[in-house]
Amino acid sequence: MKTISYKDGKLTLLDQTQLPHQTTYITYTEHEKIARAIEDMVVRGAPAIGITAAYGVAVGAREYQRGSFKEHMTRVIERLQHTRPTAVNLHWALKRVHAVVTDHPAETIQALEQEAERIFEEDQAINLAIGQHLKRLVTESSAFLIHCNPGRLATSDYGTATAPFYLAHVEGVKFKVYSDETRPRLQGALTAYELSEAGIDVTVITDSTAATLMQQGKITAVFVGCDRVAANGDVVNKIGTLPLAIAAHYFKVPFYVAAPTPTFDLTIEDGSHIPIEERHATEVTHIREQPVTIEGTVYNPAFDVTPAALITGIVTEHGEIEPTYEAIKNLFSKGEKE
Amino acid sequence: MKTISYKDGKLTLLDQTQLPHQTTYITYTEHEKIARAIEDMVVRGAPAIGITAAYGVAVGAREYQRGSFKEHMTRVIERLQHTRPTAVNLHWALKRVHAVVTDHPAETIQALEQEAERIFEEDQAINLAIGQHLKRLVTESSAFLIHCNPGRLATSDYGTATAPFYLAHVEGVKFKVYSDETRPRLQGALTAYELSEAGIDVTVITDSTAATLMQQGKITAVFVGCDRVAANGDVVNKIGTLPLAIAAHYFKVPFYVAAPTPTFDLTIEDGSHIPIEERHATEVTHIREQPVTIEGTVYNPAFDVTPAALITGIVTEHGEIEPTYEAIKNLFSKGEKE
Repeated sequence: MKTISYKDGKLTLLDQTQLPHQTTYITYTEHEKIARAIEDMVVRGAPAIGITAAYGVAVGAREYQRGSFKEHMTRVIERLQHTRPTAVNLHWALKRVHAVVTDHPAETIQALEQEAERIFEEDQAINLAIGQHLKRLVTESSAFLIHCNPGRLATSDYGTATAPFYLAHVEGVKFKVYSDETRPRLQGALTAYELSEAGIDVTVITDSTAATLMQQGKITAVFVGCDRVAANGDVVNKIGTLPLAIAAHYFKVPFYVAAPTPTFDLTIEDGSHIPIEERHATEVTHIREQPVTIEGTVYNPAFDVTPAALITGIVTEHGEIEPTYEAIKNLFSKGEKE
Repeated sequence: MKTISYKDGKLTLLDQTQLPHQTTYITYTEHEKIARAIEDMVVRGAPAIGITAAYGVAVGAREYQRGSFKEHMTRVIERLQHTRPTAVNLHWALKRVHAVVTDHPAETIQALEQEAERIFEEDQAINLAIGQHLKRLVTESSAFLIHCNPGRLATSDYGTATAPFYLAHVEGVKFKVYSDETRPRLQGALTAYELSEAGIDVTVITDSTAATLMQQGKITAVFVGCDRVAANGDVVNKIGTLPLAIAAHYFKVPFYVAAPTPTFDLTIEDGSHIPIEERHATEVTHIREQPVTIEGTVYNPAFDVTPAALITGIVTEHGEIEPTYEAIKNLFSKGEKE
């Protein structure tokens, strides 16, 4: 089960819109089709979107025929830039690959492929490191609540918030994971799928059931991924994260955000300034093409903003930090010195 | 659109499992089939279940052939009793009709039909009264969040939590209603359907989106119905009510429970003692018969418990009370004196 793979100008994605019922791989040789795959959520999850876009630029470089190569590359990057507005990893990855573009197509293609691969491999290392940091919470008989799919399918491997589960499971620890179904796109099914494939004990619940589990004292901690972290520690993640964080706060359940450093956006003061993608009404009115409600007005934001005050800790590849302006500033200024 | 109607031993129910896409009425002449209709949620909503069960007893009385009539009636009532465990209106209604059963079949049938009709008519009056009490909040440009279907379809008419909307709409007040879709059974579609049929401005959202609307300051108040109120003011209602109440508390949005007095259960000290129905996993794993997740372990409680401390006010047909032991005791001791 490889979410993203690339070879000789061909990008292959596991079609996540068909999971868990069908395992279909789609191979792309045009950046426009890769952009549409991101928009249609064939691939989703902030890290996976970043990696896909990076490879998409390499694919786009190979499509060059005539005219200014640099202008061609700017058009390719802009097209991929405008696929989804919320996850900042997309912009971060595109910025990285943009930096290796020169006037020479052949040289650029090679440099782009190397840079995309580096992003891919760095993501694997990040996930592993996050997993190592969070693993201390995954003790015998513990139980976790997880929202959306911050898993293998959303990243290069291991996932962000799921990484500690894979690591603890290999060590033989027995624990439980409750997976929110995550309406409207039901990415919880992806989490249930990948964890159960790995042999991890996973229970599917509706999003509304999470608070009851916390009330019953059954949840050790909530783990979520994220799409963008603001300078003050506010976190934007999949719609439904905010009510989970509020319930965790109310029931005094620790609430951890797994956040690779490329997910931080220090140019954004707080969460209220992060652009929130609104998706099509049919995601709510239809499920698997079947109508489930009236054809009326729908409000369908894909993400929500969780205030820093509700977060116990943000866990990056460098360890856990408090969700404060100072701690985040400190983390990144250290990084610059390294 | 009549949810429940009865004539000459025939009980007709609007099949709510087919709404909003098909308007189908089913006529019943056997109490066993009425019991199954309650179990399968052809009819649902605490008040509607109570009314249906009461008529179901009348239907059952007409099925008597030989042996002890009283024993036959006890079997009929017990069958209807064991359909759904959480809503107390069912037990309340069955107790009322049980009280009119004598040794004489013909006399009993007439008395049962009259008693069921009285329950139906009282429910209409209760809804209207609740609507009058809550209507003061439905002012020009206000906006409300509503969970599940505490509407026309769940009651004799007007609904409980929806009654103020119908009354304010007739008076020409312009307001908005946001209807949670209410997974797993998507009763929010019923609310969206009945409100939009009446010309009320309704927007459908996933359950996870409710907290974001409160965060944005868009919600004047949350209105929910209930299935049982404990002596201390804890409220059991459709799964998803608890996280809404926690979010409303966090964002300081008033949270009102519309509760007809037959929904109170003074024999239950607090919410933790109310039996919570767990329903079949397929409600979560399948939507409209289509699989939407893995075939794995599911936890599917149909209701949750909202602590009294999170509730702004409980509105009965007698007006608003605080969700406290004293206020509830006082309400019912007054009722006894009347």
